[in-house]
Amino acid sequence: MCHSFATVSRMSFNEKLKRAWAESGSLLCVGLDPDMDKLPETAKQASLPIFHFCRAIVDATADLVCAFKPQIAYFHAAGAEHDLEALIDYMRDRYPRIPIILDAKRGDIGSTAKQYAHEAFDRYRADAVTANPYMGGDSLQPFLDYADRGIFLLCRTSNPGGADVQELEVAGRPVYEHVAEMAANKWNAHNNIGLVVGATQPQPLRRVRALIGDMPLLVPGVGSQGGDPRAVLEAASTSNGTGLIVNVSRAVLYAGQGADYADEARKKAQQIRESLKG
Amino acid sequence: MCHSFATVSRMSFNEKLKRAWAESGSLLCVGLDPDMDKLPETAKQASLPIFHFCRAIVDATADLVCAFKPQIAYFHAAGAEHDLEALIDYMRDRYPRIPIILDAKRGDIGSTAKQYAHEAFDRYRADAVTANPYMGGDSLQPFLDYADRGIFLLCRTSNPGGADVQELEVAGRPVYEHVAEMAANKWNAHNNIGLVVGATQPQPLRRVRALIGDMPLLVPGVGSQGGDPRAVLEAASTSNGTGLIVNVSRAVLYAGQGADYADEARKKAQQIRESLKG
Repeated sequence: MCHSFATVSRMSFNEKLKRAWAESGSLLCVGLDPDMDKLPETAKQASLPIFHFCRAIVDATADLVCAFKPQIAYFHAAGAEHDLEALIDYMRDRYPRIPIILDAKRGDIGSTAKQYAHEAFDRYRADAVTANPYMGGDSLQPFLDYADRGIFLLCRTSNPGGADVQELEVAGRPVYEHVAEMAANKWNAHNNIGLVVGATQPQPLRRVRALIGDMPLLVPGVGSQGGDPRAVLEAASTSNGTGLIVNVSRAVLYAGQGADYADEARKKAQQIRESLKG
Repeated sequence: MCHSFATVSRMSFNEKLKRAWAESGSLLCVGLDPDMDKLPETAKQASLPIFHFCRAIVDATADLVCAFKPQIAYFHAAGAEHDLEALIDYMRDRYPRIPIILDAKRGDIGSTAKQYAHEAFDRYRADAVTANPYMGGDSLQPFLDYADRGIFLLCRTSNPGGADVQELEVAGRPVYEHVAEMAANKWNAHNNIGLVVGATQPQPLRRVRALIGDMPLLVPGVGSQGGDPRAVLEAASTSNGTGLIVNVSRAVLYAGQGADYADEARKKAQQIRESLKG
């Protein structure tokens, strides 16, 4: 057991992710965004509602996913840091082969980025984190220096306002393509970068895939935001049918509001997982 | 006392900031970046080292500043959320007229940004927060909707890698100028936006000031990062000699390592404050 844990610890994020794709046969990532206002009543009545709710979702969907993605804002807004610590401890203990992507979208000057990296990788022991490229390469370096962890850089996001900056045209191409190129060709010395590209339009997915080879893409926007699973697959999966971590949060988490909410979440996750098969 | 508190609460961030500039006669903001590895021994021995250290710095410099800027990464990395809550409670109680800018550089889709805004403005009760514009207008809206709070958007940052994305040329001008224009002309309906522009080059300060009128600028990069105070003033102060919040963190915080570290911090803050007089 000790040996197996040590093996998991030393594995690179990309290796862990590839194993998870192979073992789960799934491209689905369930996003853990525990909004206190939306929790089912049975979860609200538990002693640690946020931990309780997320644990139930994790147990109900663990065999259906290639990754879990806790969104740190929901935990911090509720003062639930200890729920997040307990949840990640639980996931690492029970499901050590499933990568945990901490969605935090950090970005700051090097000395501060070092603190954020310490928070994500040492305090919370995440396998990967999301980060914002607006401040450039040196702001990302403290994350990238954790060579066995993954860093997903925002590239073309799924929200409508994503166009405001990301689609500005630079030398005939949008800003997000320049970000993709820098990520692939300039910043990826440790081979631990992935990109965040939304599912809501297939065109950016296709263009980014063409620029970055087999680097992993974290793809939000299927589910509540309306992205089409088949279009995502066609646009951006790699030759072996993987390369994608398709995140769904709300559509799974809040599929049911009754005492059987975890069963409903599982059903929804199964549906989406099937829709993501090639 | 009650009446005075109510008046402070209802005041807009810009009004509070203008009053702080007038009353303090200072453009200096002290950044509270409590790095456990750098704290003086006497602070490390206190029961809540981070709170203890920051409180001592605040008490030593409160009459010299127009704002304080706690950097949330340092608190989160150390698991010191309660130190941050206690510190902000202390500042609001003892120095209610000094604006508190929570440096967090958040940016996410609307539903998540709402959680981050809740964290900054309700949980921590900050007067203002920093945010990242890469995800565009709708990702900023939940912050902007707190009309009595300030939102400082990253525009042209002081770190070398700031150029990677921010200086990409769009229609003959750098990305950061487009961000400044959107901030001033498209996103500022509640008149509560400011911009972050680094002190390390005067040119972006001048160009941004020309685009945004009297909007406040939060200017890091004087002090440890080497920006020249006089060049900052010449490039970007407004007609009445204000408009700038010049942040200094490390050079003040770690001016001394002895038991008199707060006195040393005060001396350094006084020097910088004087260097920022027109």
